[in-house]
Amino acid sequence: MKKVAVVLSGCGVYDGSEVYEAVCTLLALDKVGAEVQCFAPNVEQMHVINHLNGEEMVGETRNVLIESGRICRGAVKDVAQANADEYDALIVPGGFGAAKNLSDFALKGAECQVNPDFLRFAQAVHRAGKPIGLICIAPALSVAICGEGVECTIGNDRETASVLETMGAKHCDCPVQQAHVDRERKLVTTPAYMLANRVSEAAAGIEQCVKEVLALV
Amino acid sequence: MKKVAVVLSGCGVYDGSEVYEAVCTLLALDKVGAEVQCFAPNVEQMHVINHLNGEEMVGETRNVLIESGRICRGAVKDVAQANADEYDALIVPGGFGAAKNLSDFALKGAECQVNPDFLRFAQAVHRAGKPIGLICIAPALSVAICGEGVECTIGNDRETASVLETMGAKHCDCPVQQAHVDRERKLVTTPAYMLANRVSEAAAGIEQCVKEVLALV
Repeated sequence: MKKVAVVLSGCGVYDGSEVYEAVCTLLALDKVGAEVQCFAPNVEQMHVINHLNGEEMVGETRNVLIESGRICRGAVKDVAQANADEYDALIVPGGFGAAKNLSDFALKGAECQVNPDFLRFAQAVHRAGKPIGLICIAPALSVAICGEGVECTIGNDRETASVLETMGAKHCDCPVQQAHVDRERKLVTTPAYMLANRVSEAAAGIEQCVKEVLALV
Repeated sequence: MKKVAVVLSGCGVYDGSEVYEAVCTLLALDKVGAEVQCFAPNVEQMHVINHLNGEEMVGETRNVLIESGRICRGAVKDVAQANADEYDALIVPGGFGAAKNLSDFALKGAECQVNPDFLRFAQAVHRAGKPIGLICIAPALSVAICGEGVECTIGNDRETASVLETMGAKHCDCPVQQAHVDRERKLVTTPAYMLANRVSEAAAGIEQCVKEVLALV
C-alpha cells in the first residue's frame, strides 16, 4: 500500500485550501487504496476572508493547522513533524492558502518565501526521488521544491505563467482535465480551479494527477 | 436539466456540514449534469469546535451561511430566500451542523426544533411531490419534513434509530454503500459517516442517494 502525504493550508479557497480540490484529492487517493496522512503548517493564517463577499474579516485570526482539520475530520498533523522517509509521495491541493499560508506568493510573486517546515519536508521528499503532485496555484512552489528548470503548469494564464518562468520554471500549458508530468524531476501538476468552471472538471484533472503521481512511485 | 437545492449547515463535521459528504454530494450532482444551488441558514453556529482536539473554542462565534461558503467557493444563498417552485429536488448532507444548526437534535433528541427557514423550504419541496435526499444524521429531520410514518436510515446505530422511531419515523438498517428509498414519500437516505470508515465508502452511498433522488424527479 502506497503512503501519501497531503499538505493542506487552511479550509476555504480564499484564505486556505480549495475545499473541492482537497476532497477530490483525498477521494481519488482513497479510491485507489492509498494510505493518506494530512499535514498542515501550525501557523496563523495570513488573514480570514468572508467567503460570501470576499472581504477580510478584520480582527479575526485562525490557525492553519486547526482550520485544515475541518476538511479531514481532524486527521491532520503539524507538517513540522512530517518525515519524508515515511511517505512514498506528496500532494498539495491549491486554493489561496498555498499562496498565502504555505508561501507568500500572493503578496510577493517571484520573490516569495516558502513556509520553512513545509519546504524542508517537500525538498526531502524530492531529494529522495519520490514524486510530488502540485494542484492549481501550488505549482508556484515548484522551483523552491525541485529547483530551476522544472516543468509545471498552472493552466494557461499568461501573467501567472510568466511569474513562474521568472522564478526559473518552464511553464507548459495544460487543459483542466489533464496533468503535466516532468518525468525527470517526478513533478506532476494540474490546473484545477485555475481553469475549472465546474467541480467535475477539477476532479478529472486531479484524478489524472493522483494517477500519475502514484505511477511514479 | 434538473435543478437541485443543497442545504449546508456550516463547514466542518463537528459544528457544520461534514465536508467530505458535502463535496461528494456536489460532485455527484455535477457529474450527472444537475444544476445546483447551495443554501444555508443565516444564523450563528451553535458553537465553534476546534477540529484538532474536539474542544469548544469558547468566545468564538461564526455564521452558518458565511462558513458554508467555504465549501462551495462562496456560491451559497440564505435558505430564507429559497423558493421550492424553482427546484426539482433537495439534498441535505450530514455533519453535526444538521443536528446543531439546522436543528437542535444534538441537544434535544426527539424533542428537537428545526430551523424555521429551512423547515418551510423543505416542507414546501415535499408538499410539491419533489424528492428529498438526507445524508448521515440529517435523516433526524425526516419526520419534521415528511411527517410520521416516513421510512429512513441512519445506518444501524440502535440508540439513534430508536430516537428517530420515537419521533415517528420507521427506521430501516442500510449499509454504507447503499441508500434507502421511501418511494411513497420520495425520501432517500444514506448513512455516510454514521457508518463510513473511509471517504470512498461515504462517496459510494452518496452517489446512490443522488441517483435515486434524481430518478424520483
